[in-house]
Amino acid sequence: MNMVDIITKKRDGEELTPEEIRFFIENYVKDRIPDYQASALLMAIYFRGLSRAETFALTEAMEFSGDVEDLSDLPGVKVDKHSTGGVGDKTTLVVAPVAAAAGVTVAKMSGRGLGFTGGTADKLEAIPGFRTRLEPAEFHRQLEELGLAVITQTGSITPADKKIYALRDVTGTVESPGLIASSIMSKKLAAGSDGIVLDVKCGSGALLKDLAEAENMADLMIDIGRKAGRKMVAVISDMSQPLGRAVGNALEVEEAVQVLKGGGPEDLRQLCLELAGEMIWIGGRAESFEEGKETARQVLSDGRALEKFRQMVRRQGGDDRIIEEPERMGSSRYSRDVLAGRTGFIAETDTREIGRASQHLGAGRLRKEDEIDFTAGIRMHVRIGDFVKEGDVLATLYGADSRRLEEAETILEAAIRISAEPAAPPKLIQKIIQ
Amino acid sequence: MNMVDIITKKRDGEELTPEEIRFFIENYVKDRIPDYQASALLMAIYFRGLSRAETFALTEAMEFSGDVEDLSDLPGVKVDKHSTGGVGDKTTLVVAPVAAAAGVTVAKMSGRGLGFTGGTADKLEAIPGFRTRLEPAEFHRQLEELGLAVITQTGSITPADKKIYALRDVTGTVESPGLIASSIMSKKLAAGSDGIVLDVKCGSGALLKDLAEAENMADLMIDIGRKAGRKMVAVISDMSQPLGRAVGNALEVEEAVQVLKGGGPEDLRQLCLELAGEMIWIGGRAESFEEGKETARQVLSDGRALEKFRQMVRRQGGDDRIIEEPERMGSSRYSRDVLAGRTGFIAETDTREIGRASQHLGAGRLRKEDEIDFTAGIRMHVRIGDFVKEGDVLATLYGADSRRLEEAETILEAAIRISAEPAAPPKLIQKIIQ
Repeated sequence: MNMVDIITKKRDGEELTPEEIRFFIENYVKDRIPDYQASALLMAIYFRGLSRAETFALTEAMEFSGDVEDLSDLPGVKVDKHSTGGVGDKTTLVVAPVAAAAGVTVAKMSGRGLGFTGGTADKLEAIPGFRTRLEPAEFHRQLEELGLAVITQTGSITPADKKIYALRDVTGTVESPGLIASSIMSKKLAAGSDGIVLDVKCGSGALLKDLAEAENMADLMIDIGRKAGRKMVAVISDMSQPLGRAVGNALEVEEAVQVLKGGGPEDLRQLCLELAGEMIWIGGRAESFEEGKETARQVLSDGRALEKFRQMVRRQGGDDRIIEEPERMGSSRYSRDVLAGRTGFIAETDTREIGRASQHLGAGRLRKEDEIDFTAGIRMHVRIGDFVKEGDVLATLYGADSRRLEEAETILEAAIRISAEPAAPPKLIQKIIQ
Repeated sequence: MNMVDIITKKRDGEELTPEEIRFFIENYVKDRIPDYQASALLMAIYFRGLSRAETFALTEAMEFSGDVEDLSDLPGVKVDKHSTGGVGDKTTLVVAPVAAAAGVTVAKMSGRGLGFTGGTADKLEAIPGFRTRLEPAEFHRQLEELGLAVITQTGSITPADKKIYALRDVTGTVESPGLIASSIMSKKLAAGSDGIVLDVKCGSGALLKDLAEAENMADLMIDIGRKAGRKMVAVISDMSQPLGRAVGNALEVEEAVQVLKGGGPEDLRQLCLELAGEMIWIGGRAESFEEGKETARQVLSDGRALEKFRQMVRRQGGDDRIIEEPERMGSSRYSRDVLAGRTGFIAETDTREIGRASQHLGAGRLRKEDEIDFTAGIRMHVRIGDFVKEGDVLATLYGADSRRLEEAETILEAAIRISAEPAAPPKLIQKIIQ
């Protein structure tokens, strides 16, 4: 078996065997296949796609390219949750404690922000002292005792995916359904949970722009998970505008806490109930999805979810006083309002650009080695369908660099389109696949 | 401008600008663009193709990526010749001296064998003492005084093409018309001749399998050359069987000398007259192509072409006694006849496999660093259409390793198909494009 033959075979539209895919992954992770051959194969895959069988094989090969988490000694059904990424998506901060409060063990490995999308690990680190890196033994002990831990992916999990992801990022081969699905699912499978709830985003702030694409992606990931014996459900949710009002790390933690206290923006609360309901249901703590959602509502309203969150924050070294005093996470030196240039209805938001503006303000990294400014970000004051008058505040920007605030303001002005015609608010929950 | 955007643009089927193509070539040759991005772009080009404008820009960028030969101080029209490569193709050894004997300056940079195809430089080195590497000044002086030199490409010519070719070879991106044409033509343009005669091969022993493909390739290369102000003609010739009878370096020199002496196999002689006729015509030493061919016939029959060849061999340090005594090039330790397994007509030969067998015997390199055995090779005794009886000798193999002779025999037996039905000999000259 040799790599040129594998590249040529894929290039010519033939199906690779599981052995060929394993050969590629095993040798690539050991640096026995050079990057230039891997990128040629990835580009051929971009054009030819991957069959279901190839996607299964690729996922499995990446899953077992490093350590695999073993959670079998923990009681009950362990449930994980994954979002394909968006702007203002802080649901994990809510649904993980909600599901854990309902008795589901939630062992969540979270990512960092990538491009215009945020990452849960970065958000949690906005809480002073919060440690997202736990040793395996500590992670396990916390799961045993608290039923909840949110950490960053450990270094030894799916090294093949890490290497391939970094290469895709610089070779124009990110947007390939089979590669996206296998990347996500290899990590999720290696993380060891029995059930996975997927939140597949679609719209201007998501990688997938339309519902059909999002459905295909959800179906593909569900297939991969079920093939590997996991319980799978997916929610397809709208990302044509930021989720909730807050974009940026500390701002999002504050907003998540509002939801955990029973308040918060309605859209965020609604999506959290859906996702947590699914987690409680497949986690075996409810007879049905509807019952799961009802349980989620209860643990939110009676304070148990907030208490679970507080315990996690404390246990992972964080200052839980931020729950009552969010200003303990700090505040930005500068803020700036973005005003409506005309009277009319909010017709459309370019959510990717809003995410990019937040990143530019310091809430995300422009380069891998950048430090995040946890206090930077954006508060949105309008949603699609709202009526605004000229001069109304559309959004408030926060950051440490006044020039960047001005630049972000320009981005925001262009990203929020106001129209004379009334516009219908988008549907938040586009589809549920169980 | 950045490389990821360029890759993505090509991937999405948009046309690259000349500036983008130059950006890629200039930075790649300086190692500022990594191989893994170059290979991703090459694979995207494989799928999307290159427009004429892109092909022109790529050729030009590669042409000027290193030194460009300046032959303008030499008198008359300088003419080059290029073959797209085949098995037993020793025409350069004949046509270069023929055209030079007719008064055309022939400054030829030749390649080495690649895969199953042979290379003129390797063939010439079968002549004891022959130097294919001349210093620029020496090359020029020889052209001034003799009107003929055949050397290997100098190191400083088209470094971008060298780097890209090496990468294509290991990333499954060789077979792309725009990349093939720009690779060939960038070298030919940088080599500085005013006119170029192309010998585009088609059939089982060529990269291009059918006439339509070969015609497209010829058209493309002619367009590139004319855009750059060169006189261009192309001959499309058959490569469904080896050209002439000899395959292998010393064997081919011997056969070329036979043609220079006025003899040799008819097919080889015929193609040489076509190509040399074209060279003499575009070199301004004949009023028409037909007159050019007639001149070629004359210089072959009156010994002037042979004399020119002798002078070149001597001048480049070679032992010209091989002209009378070809055994001075040595002989193989072993030889082995391949016999007809049945009675019938030679219906088809897998010429690529015959080339591969010759390479396996030592006439070509399996790896770049391999040494060539100049005496190894194959003598074909039959041609398509011939009638043979069971036990007749189809071919004789020569080499230094008896095990490899046996393996080559097996390859030859499979590569020569004998049928009960009469078969028509293929047409040698498929098309002439002037």
